[in-house]
Amino acid sequence: MKNFEFWNPTKIIFGQDTISQIGQEAQKFGKKALLVYGKSSIKQNGVYDKVLKSLRAAQLEVVEFSGVKSNPVLSHVQKGIAYAKQKQVDLIVTVGGGSVIDTGKAIAAGAKTDRDVWDFYIYQATIEDALPVLAVLTLAATGSEMNFTSVLTNEATQQKYAIDTPWIFPKVSILDPTTTYSVPKNYTAYGAIDIISHATEGYFTCEDTWTPIQDRFTEGLVKTVMECTETLLKTPTDYQARATIMWASTLALNGLLTAGIGYYEFPTHMIEHSLSSMYDIAHGAGLSIVTPGWMKYMCQQSPTRFAQFAKRIFGIHEDSTAKTAEKGIEMLKAWFEKIGGPTTLSAGNIPAEEIPQIAANAEQAAILWKLKGYTQEVIIEILNLCR
Amino acid sequence: MKNFEFWNPTKIIFGQDTISQIGQEAQKFGKKALLVYGKSSIKQNGVYDKVLKSLRAAQLEVVEFSGVKSNPVLSHVQKGIAYAKQKQVDLIVTVGGGSVIDTGKAIAAGAKTDRDVWDFYIYQATIEDALPVLAVLTLAATGSEMNFTSVLTNEATQQKYAIDTPWIFPKVSILDPTTTYSVPKNYTAYGAIDIISHATEGYFTCEDTWTPIQDRFTEGLVKTVMECTETLLKTPTDYQARATIMWASTLALNGLLTAGIGYYEFPTHMIEHSLSSMYDIAHGAGLSIVTPGWMKYMCQQSPTRFAQFAKRIFGIHEDSTAKTAEKGIEMLKAWFEKIGGPTTLSAGNIPAEEIPQIAANAEQAAILWKLKGYTQEVIIEILNLCR
Repeated sequence: MKNFEFWNPTKIIFGQDTISQIGQEAQKFGKKALLVYGKSSIKQNGVYDKVLKSLRAAQLEVVEFSGVKSNPVLSHVQKGIAYAKQKQVDLIVTVGGGSVIDTGKAIAAGAKTDRDVWDFYIYQATIEDALPVLAVLTLAATGSEMNFTSVLTNEATQQKYAIDTPWIFPKVSILDPTTTYSVPKNYTAYGAIDIISHATEGYFTCEDTWTPIQDRFTEGLVKTVMECTETLLKTPTDYQARATIMWASTLALNGLLTAGIGYYEFPTHMIEHSLSSMYDIAHGAGLSIVTPGWMKYMCQQSPTRFAQFAKRIFGIHEDSTAKTAEKGIEMLKAWFEKIGGPTTLSAGNIPAEEIPQIAANAEQAAILWKLKGYTQEVIIEILNLCR
Repeated sequence: MKNFEFWNPTKIIFGQDTISQIGQEAQKFGKKALLVYGKSSIKQNGVYDKVLKSLRAAQLEVVEFSGVKSNPVLSHVQKGIAYAKQKQVDLIVTVGGGSVIDTGKAIAAGAKTDRDVWDFYIYQATIEDALPVLAVLTLAATGSEMNFTSVLTNEATQQKYAIDTPWIFPKVSILDPTTTYSVPKNYTAYGAIDIISHATEGYFTCEDTWTPIQDRFTEGLVKTVMECTETLLKTPTDYQARATIMWASTLALNGLLTAGIGYYEFPTHMIEHSLSSMYDIAHGAGLSIVTPGWMKYMCQQSPTRFAQFAKRIFGIHEDSTAKTAEKGIEMLKAWFEKIGGPTTLSAGNIPAEEIPQIAANAEQAAILWKLKGYTQEVIIEILNLCR
């Protein structure tokens, strides 16, 4: 184990019928809330009404900012920041999935500065203050409900980048699994793939592999997510499976699994961000394409961790480490396909002839994030394994 | 999964050479610190000097309160509270294991009230304020470094009781595994047994058993603690094993493993507290005696969870659930013995003829904590299985 700091002050309120607590939690942070959400889904499933009722019962003044899209974009965030400043809100209440929470975090940081918020994402400025953010989660996927990250796409430059700062930890996140009953099968699957990716990026890229607790927690989480996803594709309203997946999404990216593993990277996320910023594809679907190809590339260099994954997740024991590792990657890819994830660029309607442009876009992020070894040539090689 | 709240604001600073950060962390909470510690061990291993140097470099005024014993006692805490009030300290810095941290937490709460601190432990009063507590941990066992619990013994009444309140979460805990190199073999083993007990009390007594994440995390932690303990009994200065056990001790009782499992109990801790409050025995040694007997008793009523434990920890597959469960309990008991834990009352020098008095003492706690079914008769039956 390597030295680390772990600090995660987000309060989680988890379970059925917990949304009614958002008002009493929010009123601790001010009197005027900016309610951030996406489109109509929270109005259809009743979540919007519950949130508004609770906020009003707690005497909060509410102004609304809606229209957040999947893969949230800078121009929309900039409008939200201007609106938050104009209305002089005290806090942000986000209701939705990771895109909505990430938008709320970006507005929270942007509302406390005169700089363009994008400067934070390209490391031209450091966040030194933010409005308090609270979340009512309606999609199990990103983990944004209990971490200090926000991912945003600058649609003008096709850059999809992230910020990490303790200022944007949600103060409180309410996780009611029943809000995810209406998530369609494809997004349930993409969410599962996103969770598995969050849990395993550190597992496969960590500096220190003498990390038995972190390994077993990760493997336990991955096995559980796989089981529950299969249940949900048959029975979308299975409460236990929805609840388990929701808590898994939170634990996969709240710092727990990576504490002590030393330096690690998010290469599949980095490459995927180029897909979802350049093409109309869901983030989880993009990960479904990139992950097996990236694994094959890395496994050629060092199969050890991939073999451990293959043994412990799929029970594979081939006669060499390399073969065990390769079989595990095949099994994971087959499982992605089984649950409806695309596993080739063509299946995701990404034109293979544009691989060089995709790689050039991803290389920009590699440079910004200081990921060693991810030159355009290497990324092309990886993307060729995703054809 | 059941509904739950999870909030744990303790900041963990983990790893080699981190003790020098205690000063800069402590100065955020005031200018005058009460340094709480045990006896001479932290002076022998250099930890005391490192802490004092760091506190002084951060311009903190330090007053000392030492002499905390294993199984800390009320009279000593009361002296500490009087001293903290007299010296008007702003914060508490604890340096030691769980007994020292628990003493520091009790002083922190007691220093902010005119009531006798014992009133909090017998639920005659509620904690509404406390001084900030920081910790430098030197023993992997209790998990007190990242939770809101303090356990104290009233030596006059032979009552060993606990408080739980968010006021006493340590603000910061520094965990340097090298401080545990000098922990003797028996206390290394007792610490491991305590960690396993913390991790599994909820696992075996939970209201909801549809908790695959929590189960797998618990099982992963137990397997890892067992492996690392065996390493440490051979090589006490194995850094990776010390580090892993230290982080395991924190994760076993920081709320993570029990989030979502619903109502659960600490029956083996409850019964053990009677042993360590009435006799001169280490808490982990007492758990080593009580746990297998308690498991046998419970397994007669419902073997399912014990069979799962047996399968996943020891790979046992007998031809019935009950047999699998029983074999697992035998294996755990044998492992306790292998690492030097006593597993019978006589091995712990506890007079079996005093079982009724022990059970009467434990029943008091069962009533206070509202543990159903733990009448004196039942506890006698359990203790008879520990002979």
